[in-house]
Amino acid sequence: MKKKRPLILVTNDDGITSSGIAALVEVAKRYGDVSVVAPDSPQSGMGHAITLGHPLRLREVDLFKNVPAFECSGTPVDCVKIAVDKVLKRKPDYCFSGINHGSNSSINIIYSGTMSAAMEGAFEGIPSVGFSSLNYSHDGDMTLNKRVVREVIQSLMKGKLPQKALYNVNIPNIKLSDYKGLKMCRQANAKWQENYLERKDPLGKKYYWLRGDFKNKDKGKDTDEYALKRGHASVVPVQYDLTNYDILNSVEL
Amino acid sequence: MKKKRPLILVTNDDGITSSGIAALVEVAKRYGDVSVVAPDSPQSGMGHAITLGHPLRLREVDLFKNVPAFECSGTPVDCVKIAVDKVLKRKPDYCFSGINHGSNSSINIIYSGTMSAAMEGAFEGIPSVGFSSLNYSHDGDMTLNKRVVREVIQSLMKGKLPQKALYNVNIPNIKLSDYKGLKMCRQANAKWQENYLERKDPLGKKYYWLRGDFKNKDKGKDTDEYALKRGHASVVPVQYDLTNYDILNSVEL
Repeated sequence: MKKKRPLILVTNDDGITSSGIAALVEVAKRYGDVSVVAPDSPQSGMGHAITLGHPLRLREVDLFKNVPAFECSGTPVDCVKIAVDKVLKRKPDYCFSGINHGSNSSINIIYSGTMSAAMEGAFEGIPSVGFSSLNYSHDGDMTLNKRVVREVIQSLMKGKLPQKALYNVNIPNIKLSDYKGLKMCRQANAKWQENYLERKDPLGKKYYWLRGDFKNKDKGKDTDEYALKRGHASVVPVQYDLTNYDILNSVEL
Repeated sequence: MKKKRPLILVTNDDGITSSGIAALVEVAKRYGDVSVVAPDSPQSGMGHAITLGHPLRLREVDLFKNVPAFECSGTPVDCVKIAVDKVLKRKPDYCFSGINHGSNSSINIIYSGTMSAAMEGAFEGIPSVGFSSLNYSHDGDMTLNKRVVREVIQSLMKGKLPQKALYNVNIPNIKLSDYKGLKMCRQANAKWQENYLERKDPLGKKYYWLRGDFKNKDKGKDTDEYALKRGHASVVPVQYDLTNYDILNSVEL
């Protein structure tokens, strides 16, 4: 009997027309039956936002060759929820999110719609991966990105990466020939140093626009930041128990 | 010499006019100089969303007696960022978020704008607490809520709770006389069982609306869910390294 092809849900946060999701679909469909449910507009920085106060819309679109695809009016997390509940005929075997145009390494995971969508998949018990590229350009070369996606999917399907899990994969912005392979890492302890540009609109009223610099104060050699700077794609296994056990075990109220 | 009063930033995710933030300000101002920067509209379920693609507005409002207050057009996380960068004269000594109308216990922390605002404070090195009440009513009795806020602030200021930290405090929906006190807990491993109502709009087009039931499969007696069910206010110390170290230490790629 032929082995059943896995069902793969693909989503992202840059919107369903981005080149990153097209590259992810292109690779994923070699490994299973892909369905796409993704936001109808860019949703960067949406974190784990969900839509509560108003309804969602779903629309079937013909954007990927022989791949059913729906655009959704909600956030990346909404897309995963509605895909699992309304679009797919059964629970998917994998949930892949991305390829995001921009880094989600280190603390960026907290702000990331890409990773929140993957995390929502993991809440549902689906092996899930978020893919992000350090190349912010929407028409950048996808060769290395596709190579990394292929390596991760193969590691996952062969069980080299535990399946009951969630992974944050970041891909360096380098030439394929400089690529050093996947590396398991921890999340670097970095932060954004931010400030707001203060300007006046044509009516003379102030407005503020966020800008920031990424500061990595973490000198560890086992972090995602370290690996990415040295030509690796970083693979951070992710969990979502946010309890600080050091404090929990040391405080008596 | 008189000891300098601490500077306390207060924000929330239900919006600056909610009764929860009014109660929080009322208690906090006994312990320091309070400034409020909070969303100009409800932001529930916004998670750690930030505003990137358009500018923010700030407007001074006169809502709290003798307390400087600004409403901001952004998310709860935006409010903390802009407060620290543009509104306050110095880095605040504490950041308090809430009191949220609705639970942020267990997995709800991931979706919570209230907790994301507090987390953003913690990223800045500010001792931060998110307060949430299991009473969803906006005109509910605030007596117990205020009592819990007072207890937590006192524990924090006296150092019974470590200061360099972030806490998720949830308050049960019970009478004051049934209240059993604060309890340190871990985040329960629970999830939402969700589905979408499918309806048709007046033009005959489908729309979807999220509804869900909270399912706690965690039988531990050390969880926030357990404590809340037994009349305690739960205090979960929170960290934001999402690395799954069990997997990290067991996989060789």
